[in-house]
Amino acid sequence: MRISRRQFSQLSAMAVAAELAPPMTAQLASRKIGYAVIGLGRIADHFLRGVQASGNSKITALVSGHPDKAAGIAAQYGVPKANIYNYENMDSFRDNPAIDAVYVALPNSMHAEYTIRSAKAGKHVLCEKPMCVSVLEAEAMIAACKAANVKLMIAYRCHFEPTNLAAVKLIRDGALGQVQQIQSAFGFNCGAQEWRLQKPLAGGGPLMDVGIYCLNATRYLTGEEPAAFSAYTHSNPNDPRFQTVEENLNWITRFPSGILATCETSYGANMDGYFRVYGSKGWLEVDTAFAYEGLSLKADCYDASGKHIQLDQPNPEKDPIHFTREADHFSDCILNNRTPKTPGEEGLRDMQCIREIYRSAGIAMA
Amino acid sequence: MRISRRQFSQLSAMAVAAELAPPMTAQLASRKIGYAVIGLGRIADHFLRGVQASGNSKITALVSGHPDKAAGIAAQYGVPKANIYNYENMDSFRDNPAIDAVYVALPNSMHAEYTIRSAKAGKHVLCEKPMCVSVLEAEAMIAACKAANVKLMIAYRCHFEPTNLAAVKLIRDGALGQVQQIQSAFGFNCGAQEWRLQKPLAGGGPLMDVGIYCLNATRYLTGEEPAAFSAYTHSNPNDPRFQTVEENLNWITRFPSGILATCETSYGANMDGYFRVYGSKGWLEVDTAFAYEGLSLKADCYDASGKHIQLDQPNPEKDPIHFTREADHFSDCILNNRTPKTPGEEGLRDMQCIREIYRSAGIAMA
Repeated sequence: MRISRRQFSQLSAMAVAAELAPPMTAQLASRKIGYAVIGLGRIADHFLRGVQASGNSKITALVSGHPDKAAGIAAQYGVPKANIYNYENMDSFRDNPAIDAVYVALPNSMHAEYTIRSAKAGKHVLCEKPMCVSVLEAEAMIAACKAANVKLMIAYRCHFEPTNLAAVKLIRDGALGQVQQIQSAFGFNCGAQEWRLQKPLAGGGPLMDVGIYCLNATRYLTGEEPAAFSAYTHSNPNDPRFQTVEENLNWITRFPSGILATCETSYGANMDGYFRVYGSKGWLEVDTAFAYEGLSLKADCYDASGKHIQLDQPNPEKDPIHFTREADHFSDCILNNRTPKTPGEEGLRDMQCIREIYRSAGIAMA
Repeated sequence: MRISRRQFSQLSAMAVAAELAPPMTAQLASRKIGYAVIGLGRIADHFLRGVQASGNSKITALVSGHPDKAAGIAAQYGVPKANIYNYENMDSFRDNPAIDAVYVALPNSMHAEYTIRSAKAGKHVLCEKPMCVSVLEAEAMIAACKAANVKLMIAYRCHFEPTNLAAVKLIRDGALGQVQQIQSAFGFNCGAQEWRLQKPLAGGGPLMDVGIYCLNATRYLTGEEPAAFSAYTHSNPNDPRFQTVEENLNWITRFPSGILATCETSYGANMDGYFRVYGSKGWLEVDTAFAYEGLSLKADCYDASGKHIQLDQPNPEKDPIHFTREADHFSDCILNNRTPKTPGEEGLRDMQCIREIYRSAGIAMA
């Protein structure tokens, strides 16, 4: 069956409903969760705009080292001047009841420190991926949030995104038969001035930044934890961009059930993020899979009754919808005392995998 | 620039001309090279039809264990009854001047024996891929053909195919900048009755049969020999098809220049053969890349003058054109005493790579 856009919306809605219980109940929220955004870079802009569309979340504070930038954004989003903090006085937001939670959007190596400081200040933490730059940091972040009795969620957008969820649902419903192999890639040609090229800030190269999408996808597509990794890396020794982080990295994974996966990531080439899943009864592809918009699902497989399913379906949703969903979910977890779908433990598992991949490739990790 | 079909034909023709000197001169051939086809399975049918369209090649003999089948095919292709041989009396074709060369289209494990017997009978050998089932056999085949002063070519179709050649030309012309990474896959859900599931005939599983296309592609796309391999395999222990050969295999490769490649192959899932090449200035994809027809090239890159190249170009050629080109080339090499573009040494290198991949995956090889 070749399905229409309307049917796709139904399929996606079913996938979202199946994965994200309860359904988004923005209009029923008793109150809106107030967020302090820590770090005002590019991704924070997406989150700020995403929260504007949320029914249970609002921006109530900003934390930045750039007072002028913070003042401009505060004016734009209706944040009182008194709720603009810097990295030195941030801990005093403990006493500010307008702040329920923080969104940590700093360079990777600062995630642990600011998550732990926020937890100690009694705030729930939504932390960008990668969770941090080492397994030890991830464990410390989880422990700190547990000790402070606050929730910790890692901002894995794709766990809340209908096209990715539709792919997972097709797999779980057996439409592909036994999954055999997965391929995924994500990379981009990184500008020379980016902080992500500095290991003290980034903790690593493209694996930490974009390869983690491929890694995480192989885990949510299979629903399994990897049993083994093998990886290669290469960096152009004459390219000044790659003095501290890797340029290219590829790896293979074996999952306990026998599913094999191969992934590639790069800061030296543009690779639209995508994955293909090959099963005994059919295949599916999401390409692109990890961008803020423009996702698209193709599939050729069979439903439980043996009916042929052929999909070629772009997802019309626009940025910043992913961020709205993420905020909706975390706020719902706070309001109704639920465990987030992507808790700190989900981030920890990726950090453990990244440690194994770097170890296999011979790359030192923080 | 978005180019037209006519322009694509020009691009492809340039690629073919650059790779295959001299150009096909079928009409100038002083005489036609006579082929004995050894083994009358599915691929032999493509070759028989391909040679019909060749200007410098003709079918003059058949070797088969099925006299009725051979008689029918002989009648269809105008082969005299006297030129039908079986596997016992084949060596007597030494004295048949109508036979210049053989096309070995038997199961893999027989390639070495029939190549060596044909060489000893003074016939040039065009042998299907995989060349054989071990490095030692490949070396013995090369030595036997050298000792008999006959030419040996391995039937790597893609080295003579315009879409693959156009991809290689774009890379060599620098349109992608520095190639960083390659992805490729090829597999199919293998029928339970196929000889390729029996290791004594096939020598191995999908790597020997279809994965070899991905392996060979990574070599001709880079123009380099792999420096290292790492591989995983898994076979469903409850599937009777996979008692002697592997079901799934994936591997990563590192090339001396630093290019990384990841490949997948399977007898448990349909995977259209394809490759993607990611460079510092752009990318290209051929999908499908290894089929007998229906190949298609997409690219987004830059020519030497900095002009943007965008290609989305299906190749309209139909089966059995690949086989015609292959025969054209080998016959031309015989007529003009040239070295084939894909000599025994090309097959040997793949066998050496396959040995390394199987070694890494823990699979025993013949």
